[in-house]
Amino acid sequence: MAGAKANAVVGMSGGPTAVINQSFYGLVTSCLRSGKVGNVYGALHGVKGIFNEDFVDLGKETAETLQRVADTPSSALFSVRKRPTEEECARVFEVFRAHDIRFFFYIGGNDTAETLHIVNSISEREGYDLRAFHIPKTIDNDLLVTDHCPGYGSAAKFVACGFMGDNLDNRSLPGIKVNVTMGRHAGFLTAASILARQQDDDGPHLIYLPEVDFDMDRFIADVERVFSQHKRCIVAVSEGIHTPDGQPVVYIGGPDDHDNPQLSGSGALGDLLARTIKERLGEDLRVRADTFGYLQRCFPGVVSDVDAREARIAGETAAEYATRYDSGSVAFRRTGNGPDYGIECFLTPLHTVAKHTKSLPRDYIADGENDVKESYREYVEPLVGELPDIGRLAIHRVPKRLEG
Amino acid sequence: MAGAKANAVVGMSGGPTAVINQSFYGLVTSCLRSGKVGNVYGALHGVKGIFNEDFVDLGKETAETLQRVADTPSSALFSVRKRPTEEECARVFEVFRAHDIRFFFYIGGNDTAETLHIVNSISEREGYDLRAFHIPKTIDNDLLVTDHCPGYGSAAKFVACGFMGDNLDNRSLPGIKVNVTMGRHAGFLTAASILARQQDDDGPHLIYLPEVDFDMDRFIADVERVFSQHKRCIVAVSEGIHTPDGQPVVYIGGPDDHDNPQLSGSGALGDLLARTIKERLGEDLRVRADTFGYLQRCFPGVVSDVDAREARIAGETAAEYATRYDSGSVAFRRTGNGPDYGIECFLTPLHTVAKHTKSLPRDYIADGENDVKESYREYVEPLVGELPDIGRLAIHRVPKRLEG
Repeated sequence: MAGAKANAVVGMSGGPTAVINQSFYGLVTSCLRSGKVGNVYGALHGVKGIFNEDFVDLGKETAETLQRVADTPSSALFSVRKRPTEEECARVFEVFRAHDIRFFFYIGGNDTAETLHIVNSISEREGYDLRAFHIPKTIDNDLLVTDHCPGYGSAAKFVACGFMGDNLDNRSLPGIKVNVTMGRHAGFLTAASILARQQDDDGPHLIYLPEVDFDMDRFIADVERVFSQHKRCIVAVSEGIHTPDGQPVVYIGGPDDHDNPQLSGSGALGDLLARTIKERLGEDLRVRADTFGYLQRCFPGVVSDVDAREARIAGETAAEYATRYDSGSVAFRRTGNGPDYGIECFLTPLHTVAKHTKSLPRDYIADGENDVKESYREYVEPLVGELPDIGRLAIHRVPKRLEG
Repeated sequence: MAGAKANAVVGMSGGPTAVINQSFYGLVTSCLRSGKVGNVYGALHGVKGIFNEDFVDLGKETAETLQRVADTPSSALFSVRKRPTEEECARVFEVFRAHDIRFFFYIGGNDTAETLHIVNSISEREGYDLRAFHIPKTIDNDLLVTDHCPGYGSAAKFVACGFMGDNLDNRSLPGIKVNVTMGRHAGFLTAASILARQQDDDGPHLIYLPEVDFDMDRFIADVERVFSQHKRCIVAVSEGIHTPDGQPVVYIGGPDDHDNPQLSGSGALGDLLARTIKERLGEDLRVRADTFGYLQRCFPGVVSDVDAREARIAGETAAEYATRYDSGSVAFRRTGNGPDYGIECFLTPLHTVAKHTKSLPRDYIADGENDVKESYREYVEPLVGELPDIGRLAIHRVPKRLEG
């Protein structure tokens, strides 16, 4: 197989998504088919697997296994949260040389792009011929340049379905409900809850984003107003909401491997909000909080078809770009919306995607800063695809026959 | 339509499920077709709707609406948590007389069956010809007599899928993960997490049920043992776990309308367990907790086909029994297992289902009391139906070429 052709390695980094293995599949099968790459190796646990030479030979996997893996959520090669140091990057080249690896594909978010950017810079300095490509992946949808990220559509579908079901639940047994969604710096995932709003009285009735400074007094006043209008209230809250000085509303733990305080894997934020609502608006109110947590990113069976297809295309495109270019990140450009929705891929330099992240554009944030504008629906709907149909009784009232 | 024929009323009570509207559909369409019932009314918010004469005429709904509602989660007629007093029951008869209602169908759990039992007893005492039927519904699966309850299979499917995804997530980024599932007194829903265990190292590695007194020291020792073996650990915990004196492990709030302390709608139990693991086993461990919460019972699109079909049958059967018997609760008998799985319905007296609940039989609890036996799989698998396929790479290792 290998002959004189150089080998390729693929790794995965950061939080998994429901469709990361679609990108993996698109990339690996395209590389194997291309005839321009020797062996295609997988590095277990991302760069950690490269340091340790923990490689698997993906050419030895059966077509059936690869296809089943593509349709399975979460990183098939396992993941890592690690930004390598300069010294560790030196080790990368030692390993690449030993295994004649000249193609490096890394699936992940902006930290992953940064790792690739650093490795690629050193390769140029060292005169080591390396082709380094980033395949975007994040449920947060917070990468720069690209219109949207593979992984977002499926997580957004989970959030939309979660709010749809909870809205029906809350209509049936009314009360105040706070649902906390993922998203450290970017409100895209929380904003996707707008898709649950199909009829006038559907929740979420309020949406709080990390792009807006959180003010508890305003929050309580908002909830009180909605509750007095609808006799119920569903609130979507990003785990990343923070006070004006940038501090999380509740401290959970951390900092983690990426120097961030812990946000996920705890119900503390939702519980604080629910408790504050009760304290301020009445202890006898029915107030509940759920934190959607890790269910959002890897739930088998709740996958956006569009997202799965586009994730695969991103992988295939990276393989193709690697035969023509030196390095870069695969990005999507939207070519149409609504029924004309479509994307085309383009290559963007690694540094344009590394380090910084994108926030939900202010244009999508409602004037009161406690909601998302209807225009966001147009952006997110094609990424999520079809949602389950919701039926409601028409409610034909029977005239009363008794007094009070 | 009505003519000389008496009218029927249907109501829904307690927490909603993903398939309660299938029972509703089966009941309503069968009653309308039967020719033996006049109008079929829906009472909004259960008995509260009866007290207030909040009736809707279900015969005026279109066939298409009824079908769409059947496929939609959560109580289409809205729900209530209320056990009526004797005086309130007197009001029920006043309303029934005024609207010539002689058939009373109530979809719900054991409290619902008790309400029906009380109303039916009074009807006999008062010489009011009433036919009172209970259609079982609960995600907890805790009703006596019946083999299982409509609503359980779909919630169990959500729990199974949630653990399947989280197991993949945790394999990818290892750590200790606690997932809290619903179930106040009965461990059936928590036990369904066993379906996520498809390969030897799959989680949940530990399962804690409300049928067993919870001991924090034993819990920590269990987690430590699993973590040292697998380098990761996924734990399924019922929200209903309690100390030997019957107290919840963490007090959240309540008591609620049914005199129970609040268990759902808070992440406090999971957070307490995660914090205790860190305190006892090491602050630098990656420990996370998620509480599946209300997502478990009404998630659109995550529905067991078997559960949906059986829920509809339960409704149809209630309509049929009402033409032949005076009162009772629809129950399922299992006629076979595995590929021969099937059920048949039978009628059980209301008092046999009222008041008390069923626990997970001790036979299913593993000897260490921190797990469920494999035999539970045989019980639960047919109720959940097919789960998403999970693919794994075969992992063909590439020989290392460098020293350490």
